[in-house]
Amino acid sequence: MIDVAIIGCGPAGLSAAINVVQNGKSAVVFGKGPDAALLWKAEKVDNYLGIPDVTGKELMERFYDHAVKKGVEFNERKVSQIMQTGDCFSINAENNIYNAKAIILATGVERTQLVKGESKFVGSGVSYCASCDAMLFMDKTVFVTLESESGEAEARILSDLCRKVYFLPKYEFTKPVPKNVEILSGSLEEIMGKGYVSAVKVNGKEIKCDGVFLLRESVPPSSLIFSLATIGELIQVDEQMQTNIKGVYAAGDCTGKPFQIAKAVGEGLIAGIKAAKTI
Amino acid sequence: MIDVAIIGCGPAGLSAAINVVQNGKSAVVFGKGPDAALLWKAEKVDNYLGIPDVTGKELMERFYDHAVKKGVEFNERKVSQIMQTGDCFSINAENNIYNAKAIILATGVERTQLVKGESKFVGSGVSYCASCDAMLFMDKTVFVTLESESGEAEARILSDLCRKVYFLPKYEFTKPVPKNVEILSGSLEEIMGKGYVSAVKVNGKEIKCDGVFLLRESVPPSSLIFSLATIGELIQVDEQMQTNIKGVYAAGDCTGKPFQIAKAVGEGLIAGIKAAKTI
Repeated sequence: MIDVAIIGCGPAGLSAAINVVQNGKSAVVFGKGPDAALLWKAEKVDNYLGIPDVTGKELMERFYDHAVKKGVEFNERKVSQIMQTGDCFSINAENNIYNAKAIILATGVERTQLVKGESKFVGSGVSYCASCDAMLFMDKTVFVTLESESGEAEARILSDLCRKVYFLPKYEFTKPVPKNVEILSGSLEEIMGKGYVSAVKVNGKEIKCDGVFLLRESVPPSSLIFSLATIGELIQVDEQMQTNIKGVYAAGDCTGKPFQIAKAVGEGLIAGIKAAKTI
Repeated sequence: MIDVAIIGCGPAGLSAAINVVQNGKSAVVFGKGPDAALLWKAEKVDNYLGIPDVTGKELMERFYDHAVKKGVEFNERKVSQIMQTGDCFSINAENNIYNAKAIILATGVERTQLVKGESKFVGSGVSYCASCDAMLFMDKTVFVTLESESGEAEARILSDLCRKVYFLPKYEFTKPVPKNVEILSGSLEEIMGKGYVSAVKVNGKEIKCDGVFLLRESVPPSSLIFSLATIGELIQVDEQMQTNIKGVYAAGDCTGKPFQIAKAVGEGLIAGIKAAKTI
């Protein structure tokens, strides 16, 4: 059993983690590694007090080193779902289940534009997790977008179960596919339907389908945990970084502006201390 | 005219300052210097992300170096009063007046115990600033405590103006004093009166007086600015670090727990950006 599981390996997640450990509890950070954090790409950072004039990469490396030194554990698997199970939480990360006493969401904000119609149909035909929802579409027709190779195992679940899969990879994809998979190119312009998904529009052309799987690098937090209170895409927190779900905290960009390192690190600290002291 | 005046030179104040400058505005930090911050005395700090395992002194020095590099200005004078004057603020620092467009309070929290009766009589005979209030006690009897030599100029205003001054230094004091000054030793136990100060109790002995001047290193923020909303000793802020007074922000320990560096630095950033963008 993990004491505190932290979803996201940016500044907020790492600050939360070191403060959980500082308070005598175990912390596991789920995330793809330092180069996955948005900060990694920042050309220059000069407003994180105490570390002037560095690149984002240098700063993230320092953050990681600190967390490693402190005894924080890391898990590179992608978390697709978190369920409350009695007094603890079950985390589904690429079909491995981990249990934790508390959760800190430090997922950042989705910088990619949402697809037209996407938010309207979440839970009504739009899903971000094949291993969670594929069964709902057995023998049906689904449309799947995929951002990188790392999600191909997820996509395979759909080609195994569904009658027909339209597959729109966002990277160069040359592998052989089963007969029921049709590879498309271009961009997804709209998700359409009346109350429930019935089609997508790709390059101006309508394609009928029963479900849409958007297999992105990150999953919107509101679809990670059932009934998490959000305002738009931002997670609602109180001044102690607690969400509306007991035992679930949030910190960093996912709670709102300013999208800045010091704010994320400060909130991570608050969430980390509070979570460690509460469990 | 200063763009943003920051009261307090701990982590919150310095983070606010670098972010004001980062946003193209001028910042002046009022405070006695890095060794005045509480952090200076911390034996070991290991939970400020990116700078593992340092002494408080090392960390404060890095913070200061960063602020200096960034072009933050410093003023070592002690601020005793801030007045709203039209669209800007007038700052009284040892009888020098500075004008600023916005104020960030990063004053920390008073760690010394309040004296019994103190909070009841603030504005009713208890003052923290001789240069502000001495005139009210002309030809009267006052009782004065002083924490260090740096406040002696303040105390002198009282010995010049008042009929009788009871003087309780909290450090070794051996200088000659005028005839109207009586030097006491021991500790101030209580401030007494009915609606207004009429006496103090020192080492169990009652001494009649008309006013009490507590000349401390730091002034409680609620007595720095008229009508600042506080809860106990903490300054009330919204999520953008704004106080109830337009143009006045607060950050760090003075806004509440946890009393931690990362929280102070994060709040300083938020206040600094907001103040710089608003003026």
